[in-house]
Amino acid sequence: MQLNKGTLIPIGGNEDKGDEVNEMYTMEFIDEGILFHVVKEAGGVDSKIVVIPTASSIPVEVGENYLDAFSKLGCTNVTVLDIRSQEDSEKQESIDLIKSCDCVMFSGGDQSKITDRIGNTTIHNILTERYKNEEGFVIAGTSAGAMAMANEMIAGGSATESFIKGAVLMYKGLGLIPELIVDTHFIKRGRFGRQSEAIAKFPNLLGLGLAEDTGMIIKNGNDCTVIGSGMVIVFDGSSLTHNNEKVLEEGTPMTMANMTVHVLSNGDQYDIKNRKVSVLPIEAPFI
Amino acid sequence: MQLNKGTLIPIGGNEDKGDEVNEMYTMEFIDEGILFHVVKEAGGVDSKIVVIPTASSIPVEVGENYLDAFSKLGCTNVTVLDIRSQEDSEKQESIDLIKSCDCVMFSGGDQSKITDRIGNTTIHNILTERYKNEEGFVIAGTSAGAMAMANEMIAGGSATESFIKGAVLMYKGLGLIPELIVDTHFIKRGRFGRQSEAIAKFPNLLGLGLAEDTGMIIKNGNDCTVIGSGMVIVFDGSSLTHNNEKVLEEGTPMTMANMTVHVLSNGDQYDIKNRKVSVLPIEAPFI
Repeated sequence: MQLNKGTLIPIGGNEDKGDEVNEMYTMEFIDEGILFHVVKEAGGVDSKIVVIPTASSIPVEVGENYLDAFSKLGCTNVTVLDIRSQEDSEKQESIDLIKSCDCVMFSGGDQSKITDRIGNTTIHNILTERYKNEEGFVIAGTSAGAMAMANEMIAGGSATESFIKGAVLMYKGLGLIPELIVDTHFIKRGRFGRQSEAIAKFPNLLGLGLAEDTGMIIKNGNDCTVIGSGMVIVFDGSSLTHNNEKVLEEGTPMTMANMTVHVLSNGDQYDIKNRKVSVLPIEAPFI
Repeated sequence: MQLNKGTLIPIGGNEDKGDEVNEMYTMEFIDEGILFHVVKEAGGVDSKIVVIPTASSIPVEVGENYLDAFSKLGCTNVTVLDIRSQEDSEKQESIDLIKSCDCVMFSGGDQSKITDRIGNTTIHNILTERYKNEEGFVIAGTSAGAMAMANEMIAGGSATESFIKGAVLMYKGLGLIPELIVDTHFIKRGRFGRQSEAIAKFPNLLGLGLAEDTGMIIKNGNDCTVIGSGMVIVFDGSSLTHNNEKVLEEGTPMTMANMTVHVLSNGDQYDIKNRKVSVLPIEAPFI
């Protein structure tokens, strides 16, 4: 397994306000310290942070919201890179920013916009290379921005109560952490079914279900630590004894037996390669 | 293990309409065939069915709704038994009805009302004895009515995103199926956390998470078959390697590692004693 030197911070999204533009309310998770962790991992308040609101349908507002949010944390060097096309990803200005920053923060929205506009471009390559080789380089993303970190990316899928083949849409993500399938807003939006289907499709991968206001700091492409106030549910399909995904027709109810599931909370650690949980000592403080 | 001769049918509730009185919309699940299964197990449209709307805050309306619903299925012998106190559970009329019926149907609402008003009364004893000894005797319940079937009953608990000790409230249920902890409305109301905490408290029990419009037909107190359109998630805590529930203070984030989880759909079967899934053959029809 490749030892990546950078840091990934997928985040489960902020609290759902029940409207279309919930991406705007990124202030929500600052109080809880998630964004503080991003800044800390990036090297502190003077680190150069680039916000990419590409996933959003309201990128200008979301960009401004992040500028405010980082500013309130004391950050002095934050830029919004509003990429709206593959061409934008090839611009020298974009390339220079991605080459020189300490941290990239992907907003929420539609993860397919991230992969369509940034995937396989020069800045995607730079992000990948810097993440592989540069200690302290941070790629954070919330909601869509977290989901796009995977290689097998959940692009959509109805959050129905049923567990029916064909409900989940998979797409190629940025491939930063190919061992994982990342889902977000996990509990409140009832995404158990679509993550299960994703794992049924790719049982050798690990499913990560991030609740709102919850994230993982991932180092070495392997060592995960839970941050925030909610749960992270880890789905390990390697123990499955029944998985009829391959043979079922679309629309048919599915079954998965003997999936191994971990429910992790603040401070808990997970080793991807060894598929092993390390639990926070009981006396440890909230991080 | 005791071999009960009756049939239990816990149901995950009907579709949540987002208001306080969603119990009224019990018509919802008839189209999907859940209530049809209840009638079939009870012996058909001429069987004597007693509806107990005790859990509900609007028992009269709920009772009428069930009369309508069963009537539309062709049932000819349905009675509402509106028990509102322990005294009601000791009335000769109540006792006679429970002694003579083929099927009892508990409505949704607040499961604590069921245990407070019916638990440890004469009709509770009759229900228990008939369920143990009489083949074909059916006890069905939706939502609160399903949850009350357990011995360790989830009485409440916030459906937060977090997995915090003390979030779930446990209470003594009717004890019809002591091997299970039953939760309902499982996916849409985000009850993963509270069921996990319940299992952390009682790791030798099995957690059943029933989605809306989904139920289990349980025979012999052991053999479960999924009915309806959604998922049933089975939590088996016997494989847990980390469970810090006992030592944590209330309000502290929890961890559970290596829980075994099954995601079951229509027609799938589960053997409680042997903790074993039997999957529907691929060519089998929706039941």
